[in-house]
Amino acid sequence: MNKAEQMLENYRRLIEGALKKHINEAPDLQKSVRDAMAYSLFIGGKRIRPALLLEFCRVCGGNVESALNFACAVEMIHTYSLIHDDLPCMDNSDFRRGRPSCHKKFGEDIALLAGDGLLTLAFETALKTENIPAGRVIKAAVILARAAGVDGMIGGQVIDLESEGRAIPLDTLLKMYSLKTGALIKASAVIGCVLAGAGDNIVNAAETYAENIGLCFQIVDDILDLEGDEATLGKPIGSDERNRKSTFVTLNGPVIAKQKAAYLAKSAKESLKIFGEEALPLAELADMLLYRNS
Amino acid sequence: MNKAEQMLENYRRLIEGALKKHINEAPDLQKSVRDAMAYSLFIGGKRIRPALLLEFCRVCGGNVESALNFACAVEMIHTYSLIHDDLPCMDNSDFRRGRPSCHKKFGEDIALLAGDGLLTLAFETALKTENIPAGRVIKAAVILARAAGVDGMIGGQVIDLESEGRAIPLDTLLKMYSLKTGALIKASAVIGCVLAGAGDNIVNAAETYAENIGLCFQIVDDILDLEGDEATLGKPIGSDERNRKSTFVTLNGPVIAKQKAAYLAKSAKESLKIFGEEALPLAELADMLLYRNS
Repeated sequence: MNKAEQMLENYRRLIEGALKKHINEAPDLQKSVRDAMAYSLFIGGKRIRPALLLEFCRVCGGNVESALNFACAVEMIHTYSLIHDDLPCMDNSDFRRGRPSCHKKFGEDIALLAGDGLLTLAFETALKTENIPAGRVIKAAVILARAAGVDGMIGGQVIDLESEGRAIPLDTLLKMYSLKTGALIKASAVIGCVLAGAGDNIVNAAETYAENIGLCFQIVDDILDLEGDEATLGKPIGSDERNRKSTFVTLNGPVIAKQKAAYLAKSAKESLKIFGEEALPLAELADMLLYRNS
Repeated sequence: MNKAEQMLENYRRLIEGALKKHINEAPDLQKSVRDAMAYSLFIGGKRIRPALLLEFCRVCGGNVESALNFACAVEMIHTYSLIHDDLPCMDNSDFRRGRPSCHKKFGEDIALLAGDGLLTLAFETALKTENIPAGRVIKAAVILARAAGVDGMIGGQVIDLESEGRAIPLDTLLKMYSLKTGALIKASAVIGCVLAGAGDNIVNAAETYAENIGLCFQIVDDILDLEGDEATLGKPIGSDERNRKSTFVTLNGPVIAKQKAAYLAKSAKESLKIFGEEALPLAELADMLLYRNS
Protein backbone atom coordinates (compact mmCIF):
# COMPACT_ATOMS: atom_id res chain seq x y z
CA MET A 1 0.00 0.00 0.00
CA ASN A 2 1.20 3.51 -0.73
CA LYS A 3 0.80 6.35 1.75
CA ALA A 4 -2.58 7.40 0.35
CA GLU A 5 -4.02 3.90 0.53
CA GLN A 6 -2.70 3.51 4.06
CA MET A 7 -4.23 6.83 5.07
CA LEU A 8 -7.62 5.93 3.56
CA GLU A 9 -7.57 2.52 5.23
CA ASN A 10 -6.71 3.93 8.67
CA TYR A 11 -9.37 6.60 8.48
CA ARG A 12 -11.93 4.17 7.04
CA ARG A 13 -11.69 2.07 10.18
CA LEU A 14 -11.87 5.09 12.44
CA ILE A 15 -14.85 6.55 10.57
CA GLU A 16 -16.84 3.33 10.33
CA GLY A 17 -16.35 2.68 14.03
CA ALA A 18 -17.63 6.17 14.85
CA LEU A 19 -20.54 5.92 12.42
CA LYS A 20 -21.64 2.66 14.08
CA LYS A 21 -21.55 4.37 17.44
CA HIS A 22 -23.64 7.34 16.27
CA ILE A 23 -26.24 5.23 14.52
CA ASN A 24 -26.68 2.93 17.49
CA GLU A 25 -26.39 5.52 20.21
CA ALA A 26 -30.02 6.55 20.50
CA PRO A 27 -32.68 4.15 21.79
CA ASP A 28 -33.92 1.69 19.23
CA LEU A 29 -37.34 3.27 18.84
CA GLN A 30 -37.95 3.35 15.13
CA LYS A 31 -36.15 0.26 13.98
CA SER A 32 -37.15 0.31 10.32
CA VAL A 33 -35.78 3.75 9.56
CA ARG A 34 -32.69 3.18 11.64
CA ASP A 35 -32.00 -0.09 9.80
CA ALA A 36 -32.38 1.72 6.49
CA MET A 37 -29.97 4.46 7.58
CA ALA A 38 -27.40 1.88 8.73
CA TYR A 39 -27.84 -0.19 5.56
CA SER A 40 -27.00 2.74 3.32
CA LEU A 41 -24.20 4.02 5.55
CA PHE A 42 -22.47 0.63 5.46
CA ILE A 43 -23.19 -0.38 1.86
CA GLY A 44 -19.56 0.46 1.10
CA GLY A 45 -17.74 3.44 -0.34
CA LYS A 46 -14.23 4.83 -0.17
CA ARG A 47 -15.00 7.32 2.64
CA ILE A 48 -12.93 9.88 0.73
CA ARG A 49 -14.79 12.94 2.06
CA PRO A 50 -14.39 12.18 5.76
CA ALA A 51 -10.79 11.04 5.16
CA LEU A 52 -10.00 14.38 3.52
CA LEU A 53 -11.53 16.18 6.49
CA LEU A 54 -9.48 14.24 9.01
CA GLU A 55 -6.25 14.40 7.02
CA PHE A 56 -6.46 18.17 6.52
CA CYS A 57 -7.16 18.51 10.22
CA ARG A 58 -4.04 16.43 10.95
CA VAL A 59 -1.72 18.29 8.57
CA CYS A 60 -2.94 21.56 10.09
CA GLY A 61 -1.90 20.30 13.52
CA GLY A 62 -5.45 19.70 14.72
CA ASN A 63 -6.84 16.88 16.85
CA VAL A 64 -8.15 14.15 14.54
CA GLU A 65 -10.18 12.51 17.31
CA SER A 66 -12.13 15.74 17.92
CA ALA A 67 -12.79 16.18 14.20
CA LEU A 68 -14.34 12.71 13.93
CA ASN A 69 -17.89 13.94 14.56
CA PHE A 70 -17.69 16.26 11.57
CA ALA A 71 -16.16 13.47 9.47
CA CYS A 72 -19.20 11.31 10.28
CA ALA A 73 -21.51 14.22 9.49
CA VAL A 74 -19.99 14.64 6.02
CA GLU A 75 -20.40 10.92 5.29
CA MET A 76 -24.01 10.98 6.55
CA ILE A 77 -24.80 13.87 4.21
CA HIS A 78 -23.13 12.11 1.28
CA THR A 79 -25.15 8.96 2.06
CA TYR A 80 -28.47 10.79 2.40
CA SER A 81 -27.88 12.42 -1.00
CA LEU A 82 -27.36 8.98 -2.58
CA ILE A 83 -30.55 7.59 -1.00
CA HIS A 84 -32.67 10.49 -2.25
CA ASP A 85 -30.88 10.43 -5.64
CA ASP A 86 -31.79 6.78 -6.18
CA LEU A 87 -35.52 7.31 -5.51
CA PRO A 88 -37.96 6.67 -8.38
CA CYS A 89 -38.81 10.36 -8.71
CA MET A 90 -35.09 11.14 -9.17
CA ASP A 91 -32.64 8.75 -10.91
CA ASN A 92 -34.80 5.69 -10.23
CA SER A 93 -31.82 3.43 -9.52
CA ASP A 94 -32.54 -0.08 -8.27
CA PHE A 95 -28.93 -0.73 -7.36
CA ARG A 96 -26.22 1.08 -5.44
CA ARG A 97 -22.73 -0.41 -5.30
CA GLY A 98 -24.03 -3.71 -6.62
CA ARG A 99 -26.69 -4.08 -3.92
CA PRO A 100 -30.38 -3.09 -3.84
CA SER A 101 -30.76 0.63 -3.31
CA CYS A 102 -32.32 1.78 -0.04
CA HIS A 103 -35.88 2.11 -1.38
CA LYS A 104 -35.72 -1.27 -3.12
CA LYS A 105 -34.88 -2.86 0.20
CA PHE A 106 -36.99 -0.80 2.63
CA GLY A 107 -39.68 0.84 0.49
CA GLU A 108 -39.84 4.40 -0.79
CA ASP A 109 -41.40 5.90 2.30
CA ILE A 110 -38.78 4.55 4.69
CA ALA A 111 -35.97 5.43 2.27
CA LEU A 112 -37.20 9.02 2.06
CA LEU A 113 -37.30 9.26 5.86
CA ALA A 114 -33.91 7.51 6.20
CA GLY A 115 -32.41 10.23 4.00
CA ASP A 116 -34.11 12.95 6.04
CA GLY A 117 -32.93 11.21 9.21
CA LEU A 118 -29.31 11.07 8.07
CA LEU A 119 -29.29 14.73 7.06
CA THR A 120 -30.68 15.69 10.46
CA LEU A 121 -28.37 13.34 12.36
CA ALA A 122 -25.43 14.83 10.47
CA PHE A 123 -26.03 18.23 12.05
CA GLU A 124 -26.73 16.77 15.48
CA THR A 125 -23.48 14.79 15.30
CA ALA A 126 -21.39 17.70 14.03
CA LEU A 127 -22.75 20.01 16.72
CA LYS A 128 -21.90 17.53 19.46
CA THR A 129 -18.19 17.99 18.69
CA GLU A 130 -16.13 18.22 21.87
CA ASN A 131 -12.79 19.83 22.72
CA ILE A 132 -12.96 22.37 19.90
CA PRO A 133 -13.96 26.00 20.57
CA ALA A 134 -17.69 26.61 20.00
CA GLY A 135 -17.03 29.41 17.53
CA ARG A 136 -15.03 27.08 15.28
CA VAL A 137 -17.70 24.38 15.49
CA ILE A 138 -20.36 26.85 14.36
CA LYS A 139 -18.16 28.15 11.53
CA ALA A 140 -17.54 24.59 10.32
CA ALA A 141 -21.23 23.64 10.58
CA VAL A 142 -22.26 26.67 8.52
CA ILE A 143 -19.73 25.67 5.83
CA LEU A 144 -21.25 22.18 5.87
CA ALA A 145 -24.81 23.46 5.58
CA ARG A 146 -23.97 25.80 2.71
CA ALA A 147 -22.10 23.07 0.82
CA ALA A 148 -25.02 20.64 1.24
CA GLY A 149 -27.75 23.17 0.46
CA VAL A 150 -29.41 24.90 -2.45
CA ASP A 151 -26.29 26.83 -3.34
CA GLY A 152 -24.20 23.66 -3.11
CA MET A 153 -25.00 19.98 -3.56
CA ILE A 154 -28.79 20.38 -3.91
CA GLY A 155 -28.27 23.16 -6.45
CA GLY A 156 -26.09 20.77 -8.46
CA GLN A 157 -28.84 18.17 -8.37
CA VAL A 158 -31.28 20.70 -9.75
CA ILE A 159 -28.97 21.55 -12.67
CA ASP A 160 -28.56 17.81 -13.26
CA LEU A 161 -32.34 17.25 -13.31
CA GLU A 162 -32.93 20.19 -15.61
CA SER A 163 -30.19 19.04 -18.00
CA GLU A 164 -31.54 15.52 -18.38
CA GLY A 165 -31.56 14.14 -21.91
CA ARG A 166 -30.28 17.30 -23.55
CA ALA A 167 -26.92 18.77 -24.48
CA ILE A 168 -25.73 21.46 -22.08
CA PRO A 169 -22.90 23.94 -22.56
CA LEU A 170 -19.55 23.20 -20.91
CA ASP A 171 -19.85 26.00 -18.38
CA THR A 172 -23.20 24.62 -17.14
CA LEU A 173 -21.63 21.16 -16.88
CA LEU A 174 -18.68 22.49 -14.88
CA LYS A 175 -21.04 24.44 -12.64
CA MET A 176 -23.06 21.25 -12.07
CA TYR A 177 -19.92 19.25 -11.24
CA SER A 178 -18.62 21.90 -8.87
CA LEU A 179 -21.91 21.95 -6.97
CA LYS A 180 -23.20 18.38 -7.11
CA THR A 181 -20.00 16.60 -6.08
CA GLY A 182 -17.42 19.38 -5.71
CA ALA A 183 -19.09 21.39 -2.96
CA LEU A 184 -19.09 18.63 -0.32
CA ILE A 185 -15.53 17.52 -1.20
CA LYS A 186 -14.32 21.10 -0.88
CA ALA A 187 -16.23 21.60 2.36
CA SER A 188 -14.65 18.45 3.81
CA ALA A 189 -11.12 19.75 3.23
CA VAL A 190 -11.96 23.24 4.45
CA ILE A 191 -13.74 22.01 7.60
CA GLY A 192 -10.68 19.93 8.52
CA CYS A 193 -8.57 23.09 8.42
CA VAL A 194 -11.14 25.25 10.21
CA LEU A 195 -11.51 22.77 13.09
CA ALA A 196 -7.72 22.82 13.48
CA GLY A 197 -7.81 26.61 13.66
CA ALA A 198 -5.82 27.12 10.44
CA GLY A 199 -5.36 30.56 8.90
CA ASP A 200 -6.86 31.83 5.66
CA ASN A 201 -3.85 31.02 3.44
CA ILE A 202 -3.95 27.40 4.61
CA VAL A 203 -7.71 27.19 4.10
CA ASN A 204 -7.32 28.61 0.59
CA ALA A 205 -4.67 26.03 -0.31
CA ALA A 206 -6.90 23.18 0.95
CA GLU A 207 -9.79 24.62 -1.02
CA THR A 208 -7.74 24.70 -4.24
CA TYR A 209 -6.54 21.13 -3.69
CA ALA A 210 -10.09 19.89 -3.10
CA GLU A 211 -11.52 21.76 -6.09
CA ASN A 212 -8.92 20.18 -8.32
CA ILE A 213 -9.27 16.60 -7.07
CA GLY A 214 -13.07 16.96 -7.04
CA LEU A 215 -13.22 17.85 -10.72
CA CYS A 216 -10.46 15.34 -11.56
CA PHE A 217 -12.51 12.61 -9.86
CA GLN A 218 -15.58 13.51 -11.87
CA ILE A 219 -13.77 13.62 -15.21
CA VAL A 220 -12.11 10.25 -14.51
CA ASP A 221 -15.62 8.91 -13.83
CA ASP A 222 -16.68 10.17 -17.25
CA ILE A 223 -13.63 8.53 -18.89
CA LEU A 224 -14.28 5.22 -17.11
CA ASP A 225 -17.87 5.23 -18.38
CA LEU A 226 -16.43 5.25 -21.93
CA GLU A 227 -13.29 3.14 -21.59
CA GLY A 228 -13.47 1.33 -18.26
CA ASP A 229 -13.64 -2.41 -17.70
CA GLU A 230 -17.13 -3.51 -16.69
CA ALA A 231 -15.88 -6.30 -14.43
CA THR A 232 -13.49 -3.98 -12.56
CA LEU A 233 -16.03 -1.16 -12.39
CA GLY A 234 -18.84 -3.46 -11.28
CA LYS A 235 -21.32 -1.66 -13.54
CA PRO A 236 -22.11 -1.43 -17.26
CA ILE A 237 -20.16 1.14 -19.28
CA GLY A 238 -21.45 3.42 -22.01
CA SER A 239 -24.44 4.58 -19.99
CA ASP A 240 -23.70 8.28 -20.52
CA GLU A 241 -23.86 7.94 -24.30
CA ARG A 242 -26.95 5.70 -24.15
CA ASN A 243 -28.74 8.23 -21.94
CA ARG A 244 -27.50 11.14 -24.08
CA LYS A 245 -26.01 12.58 -20.96
CA SER A 246 -23.63 15.50 -21.33
CA THR A 247 -20.33 14.77 -19.60
CA PHE A 248 -16.84 16.18 -19.92
CA VAL A 249 -16.06 13.26 -22.26
CA THR A 250 -19.14 13.56 -24.46
CA LEU A 251 -18.53 17.32 -24.82
CA ASN A 252 -14.73 17.29 -25.31
CA GLY A 253 -13.74 13.75 -26.24
CA PRO A 254 -11.50 11.37 -24.27
CA VAL A 255 -8.14 12.89 -25.29
CA ILE A 256 -8.87 16.35 -23.93
CA ALA A 257 -10.57 14.78 -20.90
CA LYS A 258 -7.42 12.82 -20.02
CA GLN A 259 -5.23 15.90 -20.44
CA LYS A 260 -7.57 17.89 -18.24
CA ALA A 261 -7.69 15.22 -15.51
CA ALA A 262 -3.87 14.99 -15.44
CA TYR A 263 -3.59 18.77 -15.28
CA LEU A 264 -6.05 18.91 -12.36
CA ALA A 265 -4.15 16.26 -10.37
CA LYS A 266 -0.92 18.20 -10.97
CA SER A 267 -2.55 21.47 -9.84
CA ALA A 268 -3.91 19.73 -6.76
CA LYS A 269 -0.42 18.55 -5.81
CA GLU A 270 1.07 22.00 -6.38
CA SER A 271 -1.41 23.57 -4.01
CA LEU A 272 -0.09 21.31 -1.23
CA LYS A 273 3.36 23.01 -1.11
CA ILE A 274 2.34 25.13 1.86
CA PHE A 275 1.87 21.96 3.95
CA GLY A 276 5.39 20.57 3.30
CA GLU A 277 6.24 16.87 3.69
CA GLU A 278 3.20 16.18 5.86
CA ALA A 279 1.01 16.38 2.77
CA LEU A 280 2.63 13.44 0.97
CA PRO A 281 -0.41 11.15 1.46
CA LEU A 282 -2.69 13.85 0.03
CA ALA A 283 -0.36 14.22 -2.98
CA GLU A 284 -0.47 10.47 -3.56
CA LEU A 285 -4.24 10.57 -3.20
CA ALA A 286 -4.47 13.01 -6.12
CA ASP A 287 -2.54 10.56 -8.33
CA MET A 288 -4.56 7.64 -7.03
CA LEU A 289 -7.82 9.32 -8.05
CA LEU A 290 -6.31 10.11 -11.47
CA TYR A 291 -5.00 6.61 -12.20
CA ARG A 292 -7.87 4.60 -10.70
CA ASN A 293 -9.71 2.07 -12.85
CA SER A 294 -12.78 1.69 -10.66
CA MET B 1 -58.15 40.56 19.21
CA ASN B 2 -57.13 39.03 22.51
CA LYS B 3 -53.55 39.02 23.73
CA ALA B 4 -52.76 35.64 22.10
CA GLU B 5 -54.11 36.72 18.73
CA GLN B 6 -52.18 39.96 18.96
CA MET B 7 -49.01 38.10 19.86
CA LEU B 8 -49.42 35.65 16.96
CA GLU B 9 -50.13 38.46 14.54
CA ASN B 10 -47.08 40.50 15.61
CA TYR B 11 -44.76 37.53 15.41
CA ARG B 12 -46.27 36.37 12.12
CA ARG B 13 -45.23 39.61 10.48
CA LEU B 14 -41.76 39.46 12.00
CA ILE B 15 -41.25 35.82 11.02
CA GLU B 16 -42.55 36.15 7.48
CA GLY B 17 -40.33 39.17 6.89
CA ALA B 18 -37.29 37.25 8.13
CA LEU B 19 -38.20 34.12 6.12
CA LYS B 20 -38.43 36.23 2.95
CA LYS B 21 -34.98 37.63 3.65
CA HIS B 22 -33.41 34.20 4.21
CA ILE B 23 -34.98 32.62 1.15
CA ASN B 24 -33.93 35.47 -1.12
CA GLU B 25 -30.54 36.15 0.40
CA ALA B 26 -28.43 33.78 -1.68
CA PRO B 27 -27.91 34.33 -5.42
CA ASP B 28 -30.77 33.15 -7.58
CA LEU B 29 -28.92 30.16 -9.02
CA GLN B 30 -31.41 27.32 -8.85
CA LYS B 31 -34.65 29.15 -9.39
CA SER B 32 -37.00 26.17 -9.57
CA VAL B 33 -36.09 24.71 -6.18
CA ARG B 34 -35.98 28.13 -4.57
CA ASP B 35 -39.44 28.94 -5.94
CA ALA B 36 -40.72 25.63 -4.56
CA MET B 37 -39.24 26.36 -1.13
CA ALA B 38 -40.76 29.83 -1.09
CA TYR B 39 -44.14 28.55 -2.33
CA SER B 40 -44.45 26.09 0.54
CA LEU B 41 -43.06 28.49 3.15
CA PHE B 42 -45.66 31.10 2.22
CA ILE B 43 -48.66 28.85 1.52
CA GLY B 44 -50.07 29.98 4.86
CA GLY B 45 -50.08 28.63 8.37
CA LYS B 46 -50.44 30.00 11.86
CA ARG B 47 -46.68 30.14 12.55
CA ILE B 48 -47.36 28.79 16.03
CA ARG B 49 -43.99 27.07 16.46
CA PRO B 50 -41.81 30.11 15.74
CA ALA B 51 -44.20 32.33 17.74
CA LEU B 52 -43.79 30.03 20.76
CA LEU B 53 -40.04 30.22 20.38
CA LEU B 54 -39.99 34.01 20.26
CA GLU B 55 -42.55 34.45 23.05
CA PHE B 56 -40.70 32.13 25.44
CA CYS B 57 -37.52 33.97 24.61
CA ARG B 58 -39.26 37.25 25.45
CA VAL B 59 -40.81 36.10 28.74
CA CYS B 60 -37.38 34.78 29.77
CA GLY B 61 -35.93 38.25 29.22
CA GLY B 62 -34.12 37.31 26.02
CA ASN B 63 -33.64 39.32 22.84
CA VAL B 64 -36.44 38.43 20.41
CA GLU B 65 -34.57 39.91 17.45
CA SER B 66 -31.59 37.60 18.03
CA ALA B 67 -33.86 34.57 18.35
CA LEU B 68 -35.47 35.23 14.97
CA ASN B 69 -33.03 33.03 13.05
CA PHE B 70 -34.01 30.02 15.15
CA ALA B 71 -37.69 30.91 14.75
CA CYS B 72 -37.23 30.80 10.97
CA ALA B 73 -35.33 27.51 11.27
CA VAL B 74 -38.21 25.89 13.16
CA GLU B 75 -40.72 27.01 10.52
CA MET B 76 -38.46 25.78 7.70
CA ILE B 77 -38.26 22.36 9.34
CA HIS B 78 -42.04 22.26 9.84
CA THR B 79 -42.51 23.21 6.17
CA TYR B 80 -40.02 20.64 4.86
CA SER B 81 -41.85 17.94 6.83
CA LEU B 82 -45.16 18.90 5.21
CA ILE B 83 -43.62 18.83 1.70
CA HIS B 84 -42.16 15.35 2.20
CA ASP B 85 -45.33 14.18 3.97
CA ASP B 86 -47.47 15.14 0.98
CA LEU B 87 -45.32 13.19 -1.54
CA PRO B 88 -46.96 10.25 -3.37
CA CYS B 89 -44.80 7.70 -1.53
CA MET B 90 -46.03 9.13 1.79
CA ASP B 91 -49.55 10.57 2.29
CA ASN B 92 -50.01 11.31 -1.43
CA SER B 93 -51.84 14.61 -0.80
CA ASP B 94 -52.62 16.76 -3.80
CA PHE B 95 -53.63 19.72 -1.68
CA ARG B 96 -52.18 21.61 1.25
CA ARG B 97 -54.16 24.43 2.84
CA GLY B 98 -56.53 24.47 -0.13
CA ARG B 99 -53.79 24.94 -2.69
CA PRO B 100 -51.83 22.41 -4.79
CA SER B 101 -49.19 20.67 -2.71
CA CYS B 102 -45.56 21.36 -3.57
CA HIS B 103 -45.08 18.30 -5.79
CA LYS B 104 -48.35 18.94 -7.64
CA LYS B 105 -47.08 22.38 -8.54
CA PHE B 106 -43.35 21.76 -9.08
CA GLY B 107 -43.04 18.02 -9.69
CA GLU B 108 -41.93 15.30 -7.31
CA ASP B 109 -38.21 15.69 -7.91
CA ILE B 110 -38.15 19.42 -7.21
CA ALA B 111 -40.45 18.99 -4.20
CA LEU B 112 -38.14 16.37 -2.73
CA LEU B 113 -35.16 18.69 -3.19
CA ALA B 114 -37.11 21.69 -1.87
CA GLY B 115 -37.74 19.74 1.34
CA ASP B 116 -34.07 18.77 1.58
CA GLY B 117 -33.13 22.37 0.87
CA LEU B 118 -35.37 23.75 3.63
CA LEU B 119 -34.04 21.27 6.19
CA THR B 120 -30.47 22.23 5.29
CA LEU B 121 -31.24 25.95 5.19
CA ALA B 122 -32.84 25.63 8.63
CA PHE B 123 -29.54 24.64 10.20
CA GLU B 124 -27.57 27.21 8.23
CA THR B 125 -29.99 29.92 9.36
CA ALA B 126 -30.04 28.82 13.00
CA LEU B 127 -26.23 28.66 13.14
CA LYS B 128 -25.92 32.18 11.73
CA THR B 129 -27.57 33.55 14.88
CA GLU B 130 -25.83 36.68 16.11
CA ASN B 131 -25.49 38.33 19.52
CA ILE B 132 -26.08 35.12 21.46
CA PRO B 133 -23.15 33.19 23.02
CA ALA B 134 -21.88 30.39 20.71
CA GLY B 135 -22.37 27.73 23.40
CA ARG B 136 -26.07 28.57 23.69
CA VAL B 137 -26.48 28.55 19.91
CA ILE B 138 -24.97 25.06 19.70
CA LYS B 139 -27.12 23.80 22.58
CA ALA B 140 -30.26 25.14 20.88
CA ALA B 141 -29.28 23.69 17.49
CA VAL B 142 -28.72 20.24 19.02
CA ILE B 143 -32.19 20.41 20.61
CA LEU B 144 -33.61 21.31 17.20
CA ALA B 145 -31.80 18.46 15.43
CA ARG B 146 -32.91 15.88 18.00
CA ALA B 147 -36.53 17.08 17.86
CA ALA B 148 -36.55 16.91 14.05
CA GLY B 149 -34.70 13.59 13.78
CA VAL B 150 -35.29 9.87 14.08
CA ASP B 151 -35.97 10.11 17.81
CA GLY B 152 -38.36 13.01 17.23
CA MET B 153 -40.49 14.10 14.29
CA ILE B 154 -39.17 11.54 11.80
CA GLY B 155 -39.66 8.76 14.35
CA GLY B 156 -43.28 9.88 14.69
CA GLN B 157 -43.70 9.69 10.92
CA VAL B 158 -42.42 6.13 10.97
CA ILE B 159 -44.94 5.10 13.65
CA ASP B 160 -47.64 6.82 11.58
CA LEU B 161 -46.64 4.91 8.42
CA GLU B 162 -46.47 1.62 10.23
CA SER B 163 -49.88 2.17 11.85
CA GLU B 164 -51.67 2.91 8.59
CA GLY B 165 -55.05 1.29 8.17
CA ARG B 166 -54.95 -0.66 11.41
CA ALA B 167 -56.02 -0.07 15.01
CA ILE B 168 -53.16 0.82 17.33
CA PRO B 169 -53.10 0.89 21.12
CA LEU B 170 -53.51 4.22 22.89
CA ASP B 171 -49.91 4.30 24.14
CA THR B 172 -48.59 3.91 20.58
CA LEU B 173 -50.92 6.68 19.44
CA LEU B 174 -49.75 9.01 22.22
CA LYS B 175 -46.12 8.18 21.42
CA MET B 176 -46.77 9.00 17.78
CA TYR B 177 -48.42 12.34 18.66
CA SER B 178 -45.63 13.28 21.04
CA LEU B 179 -43.01 12.64 18.36
CA LYS B 180 -44.68 13.60 15.09
CA THR B 181 -46.06 16.97 16.14
CA GLY B 182 -45.15 17.29 19.82
CA ALA B 183 -41.36 17.15 19.52
CA LEU B 184 -40.99 20.24 17.35
CA ILE B 185 -43.55 22.24 19.37
CA LYS B 186 -41.71 21.37 22.58
CA ALA B 187 -38.32 22.15 21.02
CA SER B 188 -39.62 25.57 19.94
CA ALA B 189 -40.57 26.53 23.48
CA VAL B 190 -37.37 25.13 24.98
CA ILE B 191 -35.11 26.79 22.40
CA GLY B 192 -36.69 30.16 23.16
CA CYS B 193 -35.75 29.72 26.81
CA VAL B 194 -32.26 28.36 26.07
CA LEU B 195 -31.42 31.27 23.77
CA ALA B 196 -32.45 33.65 26.56
CA GLY B 197 -30.13 31.82 28.94
CA ALA B 198 -32.96 30.59 31.21
CA GLY B 199 -32.30 28.13 34.03
CA ASP B 200 -33.45 24.52 34.20
CA ASN B 201 -36.64 25.16 36.22
CA ILE B 202 -37.79 27.67 33.62
CA VAL B 203 -36.93 25.33 30.75
CA ASN B 204 -38.88 22.54 32.47
CA ALA B 205 -41.95 24.74 32.87
CA ALA B 206 -41.82 25.71 29.19
CA GLU B 207 -41.45 22.07 28.26
CA THR B 208 -44.52 21.08 30.29
CA TYR B 209 -46.57 23.90 28.75
CA ALA B 210 -45.55 22.89 25.23
CA GLU B 211 -46.19 19.20 25.80
CA ASN B 212 -49.69 20.00 27.01
CA ILE B 213 -50.66 22.39 24.24
CA GLY B 214 -49.07 20.09 21.65
CA LEU B 215 -51.25 17.14 22.64
CA CYS B 216 -54.27 19.41 23.16
CA PHE B 217 -53.82 20.74 19.62
CA GLN B 218 -53.69 17.22 18.21
CA ILE B 219 -56.77 16.01 20.09
CA VAL B 220 -58.76 19.07 19.01
CA ASP B 221 -57.72 18.21 15.44
CA ASP B 222 -59.19 14.74 15.94
CA ILE B 223 -62.42 16.20 17.38
CA LEU B 224 -62.75 18.65 14.47
CA ASP B 225 -62.39 15.80 12.00
CA LEU B 226 -65.52 14.30 13.57
CA GLU B 227 -67.60 17.34 14.46
CA GLY B 228 -66.08 20.32 12.67
CA ASP B 229 -67.74 22.47 10.04
CA GLU B 230 -66.37 21.70 6.59
CA ALA B 231 -66.70 25.27 5.36
CA THR B 232 -64.86 26.71 8.38
CA LEU B 233 -62.21 23.97 8.32
CA GLY B 234 -61.69 24.26 4.58
CA LYS B 235 -61.48 20.48 4.24
CA PRO B 236 -63.82 17.48 4.33
CA ILE B 237 -64.55 15.98 7.74
CA GLY B 238 -64.83 12.31 8.66
CA SER B 239 -61.57 11.36 6.90
CA ASP B 240 -60.14 9.57 9.96
CA GLU B 241 -63.08 7.18 10.14
CA ARG B 242 -63.14 6.66 6.36
CA ASN B 243 -59.40 5.82 6.40
CA ARG B 244 -59.81 3.64 9.52
CA LYS B 245 -57.21 5.84 11.14
CA SER B 246 -56.70 5.47 14.87
CA THR B 247 -57.02 8.83 16.59
CA PHE B 248 -57.71 9.90 20.15
CA VAL B 249 -61.38 10.27 19.17
CA THR B 250 -61.73 6.94 17.37
CA LEU B 251 -60.11 5.17 20.34
CA ASN B 252 -61.85 7.02 23.21
CA GLY B 253 -64.89 8.74 21.74
CA PRO B 254 -65.58 12.49 21.58
CA VAL B 255 -66.68 12.96 25.20
CA ILE B 256 -63.43 11.73 26.73
CA ALA B 257 -61.48 13.52 24.01
CA LYS B 258 -63.07 16.85 24.94
CA GLN B 259 -62.43 16.30 28.64
CA LYS B 260 -58.83 15.41 27.92
CA ALA B 261 -58.28 18.46 25.69
CA ALA B 262 -59.71 20.78 28.34
CA TYR B 263 -57.57 19.17 31.03
CA LEU B 264 -54.45 19.59 28.88
CA ALA B 265 -55.15 23.29 28.27
CA LYS B 266 -55.64 23.77 32.02
CA SER B 267 -52.38 21.96 32.81
CA ALA B 268 -50.59 24.07 30.22
CA LYS B 269 -51.80 27.26 31.89
CA GLU B 270 -50.81 26.03 35.34
CA SER B 271 -47.26 25.38 34.21
CA LEU B 272 -46.96 29.07 33.30
CA LYS B 273 -47.13 30.28 36.93
CA ILE B 274 -43.36 30.59 37.16
CA PHE B 275 -43.44 33.28 34.44
CA GLY B 276 -45.97 35.53 36.22
CA GLU B 277 -48.07 38.10 34.37
CA GLU B 278 -45.76 38.15 31.37
CA ALA B 279 -47.16 34.79 30.32
CA LEU B 280 -50.75 36.00 29.85
CA PRO B 281 -50.60 35.74 26.03
CA LEU B 282 -49.32 32.16 26.33
CA ALA B 283 -52.18 31.30 28.70
CA GLU B 284 -54.69 32.75 26.25
CA LEU B 285 -53.01 30.80 23.46
CA ALA B 286 -53.72 27.53 25.30
CA ASP B 287 -57.42 28.39 25.43
CA MET B 288 -57.40 29.57 21.85
CA LEU B 289 -56.03 26.21 20.67
CA LEU B 290 -58.67 24.43 22.77
CA TYR B 291 -61.64 26.44 21.58
CA ARG B 292 -60.64 26.81 17.91
CA ASN B 293 -63.00 25.63 15.20
CA SER B 294 -60.48 25.51 12.35
